[in-house]
Amino acid sequence: MFTCTGYAAEAADQELAPFTFQRRDPGPKDVVIEILYCGVCHSDLHTVRNEWQNTLFPSLPGHEIVGRVQAVGTDVTRFKAGDIAAVGCMVDSCRTCPSCREGLEQYCEPGFTGTYNSPDKVLGGPTFGGYSSHIVVDDAFVLKVPANLDLAAAAPLLCAGITTYSPLRHWKAGPGKKVGIVGLGGLGHMGVKLAHAMGAEVVLFTTSASKVDDGLRLGADAVVLSTDPAAMAAHAESFDLIVDAVAAPHDINAYLALIKRDGTLVQVGAPDKPLPVSVFSVIWRRRNFAGSLIGGIAETQEMLDFCGEHGITADIEMISMDKIEDAYARMLKSDVKYRFVIDMATLPKAA
Amino acid sequence: MFTCTGYAAEAADQELAPFTFQRRDPGPKDVVIEILYCGVCHSDLHTVRNEWQNTLFPSLPGHEIVGRVQAVGTDVTRFKAGDIAAVGCMVDSCRTCPSCREGLEQYCEPGFTGTYNSPDKVLGGPTFGGYSSHIVVDDAFVLKVPANLDLAAAAPLLCAGITTYSPLRHWKAGPGKKVGIVGLGGLGHMGVKLAHAMGAEVVLFTTSASKVDDGLRLGADAVVLSTDPAAMAAHAESFDLIVDAVAAPHDINAYLALIKRDGTLVQVGAPDKPLPVSVFSVIWRRRNFAGSLIGGIAETQEMLDFCGEHGITADIEMISMDKIEDAYARMLKSDVKYRFVIDMATLPKAA
Repeated sequence: MFTCTGYAAEAADQELAPFTFQRRDPGPKDVVIEILYCGVCHSDLHTVRNEWQNTLFPSLPGHEIVGRVQAVGTDVTRFKAGDIAAVGCMVDSCRTCPSCREGLEQYCEPGFTGTYNSPDKVLGGPTFGGYSSHIVVDDAFVLKVPANLDLAAAAPLLCAGITTYSPLRHWKAGPGKKVGIVGLGGLGHMGVKLAHAMGAEVVLFTTSASKVDDGLRLGADAVVLSTDPAAMAAHAESFDLIVDAVAAPHDINAYLALIKRDGTLVQVGAPDKPLPVSVFSVIWRRRNFAGSLIGGIAETQEMLDFCGEHGITADIEMISMDKIEDAYARMLKSDVKYRFVIDMATLPKAA
Repeated sequence: MFTCTGYAAEAADQELAPFTFQRRDPGPKDVVIEILYCGVCHSDLHTVRNEWQNTLFPSLPGHEIVGRVQAVGTDVTRFKAGDIAAVGCMVDSCRTCPSCREGLEQYCEPGFTGTYNSPDKVLGGPTFGGYSSHIVVDDAFVLKVPANLDLAAAAPLLCAGITTYSPLRHWKAGPGKKVGIVGLGGLGHMGVKLAHAMGAEVVLFTTSASKVDDGLRLGADAVVLSTDPAAMAAHAESFDLIVDAVAAPHDINAYLALIKRDGTLVQVGAPDKPLPVSVFSVIWRRRNFAGSLIGGIAETQEMLDFCGEHGITADIEMISMDKIEDAYARMLKSDVKYRFVIDMATLPKAA
């Protein structure tokens, strides 16, 4: 084992603070990555504050990781020291269930190993994420970053990017399709960029008049203030697909009413309270209300390559590691355009 | 016009009572049907009591109609006097919108003309349904009943049958698929029979221990008491499709948890209150929560033919017209196995 540094919370009511811990020495299939950048996802905050009641402490979050390979195991051929590499929300899965065999590791039946807050199969205790100096990950879960992308701005692709890319692909966003994105935050701004790059007609829904210009700049063909009933009604029954990235409780029946027959509203934001669905909203036009969870490893690579081809990264605000609690406070006020990324060079060295 | 008799309610707080009214004389494309049997659907009760706040009074319900053709218009070639004919939930639609052109008249964009409680395009006022001596319907919305089926027991196929058949077909119930049916009532008992005949593995969910034997008799491979958490857990993540026919509020997250990745829970019962859906229920396995509304005319004929091939009808209890309010009271207590059908020969003649 070797010593790493990071920022972790010891309990739900404690702030993130410098933390020293051990990573495993690389096995034959492992890649050791020195972390350069780590995006800040709302799930990080949910986890360190135990808002989903499932947190293993100490909790060291971060699953939007871009770094430089420091060493590789003897069986690793895809990476060598010095390469740029990325890690998303998963570091392992069972690899044998039907979902894993289909490349849908995010739906692994026994459950995938999360980059943080999962039982660590090798060392025991919880897995520790990307708010750290290094990470050791099986080659099969390490991704390549196209050379033309800014590394810091590419980090959020590993969660916010794939979380919106996967449902857009699964429900066939593309030319001739009208696609809605609800909410202009970390996920939503990626959804707008990706759906636009796929060739769909894109409509952004936001509650903030101040975000209209940004929505258009990011690639939306139209921006609708969801607080304006007439503007909403003008889009009734016209969408093939709406990707709803709002993590707060909201009226999804208002969006279901905008879906065409046989269309789908897919929820990727995760409100902690159930959403009331009017049965008539789904019966009336045989509509679907669905969910989608990140994406598989092969699809994540496909998304990164797509972003490379189209020059897509996140709009980010870089922070130093010691500003993470300030960043969380601002994230709770939606005061970020549109993703915080931690410059891991600012992480204190081990004491 | 010609005079018909029926049973109608003059207001939401009044009982159904004998009612005399006019039907149009048949146009070139019309079929005049003397009604022999009419099934009693829960929607009839919702409508006459204005529980959906959209009832046009006087309200004369009934949309599970089997009868004998009495006369046909000059352009009608599919029927002649003396033929058996059936009418379901629709008597017309726009016929030009994309849904109508695809044979999905139930999703007609301007809205189909319901057999009752829709604006009558010819006479004005509300359309009057099957609790009556005769009905006049455009040939394009009149169905044929296979000769081997009992006519009274075939009547409920026109709503309860097609409402379950259509989602079973749309979501591909058949050999190798595990299909759940929630609730053993008018819709549910048809769902069990139809899914079994389609070759699926069928599991019935009921809250009533007294319905276990009936569920198996009707074709379920297994019956699960939904009040038994262990029995429910034994089926976790195993269903391709669940058709939920319960019209009362209930916990659909308990059923979503039983759906496989990419599977669908389709609601055909229509609770008047929204159903709370946990976002995690749909995100976790990319599940779909959908709705489905009756079926198109071509699919309704396909369903009737399928029932003819497989010898499927509803399990019914025949009543006389004057017992309709008693039947409603028993229906509200789920005290019917499994559909009331009115013998229209018991309708009083015009005064």
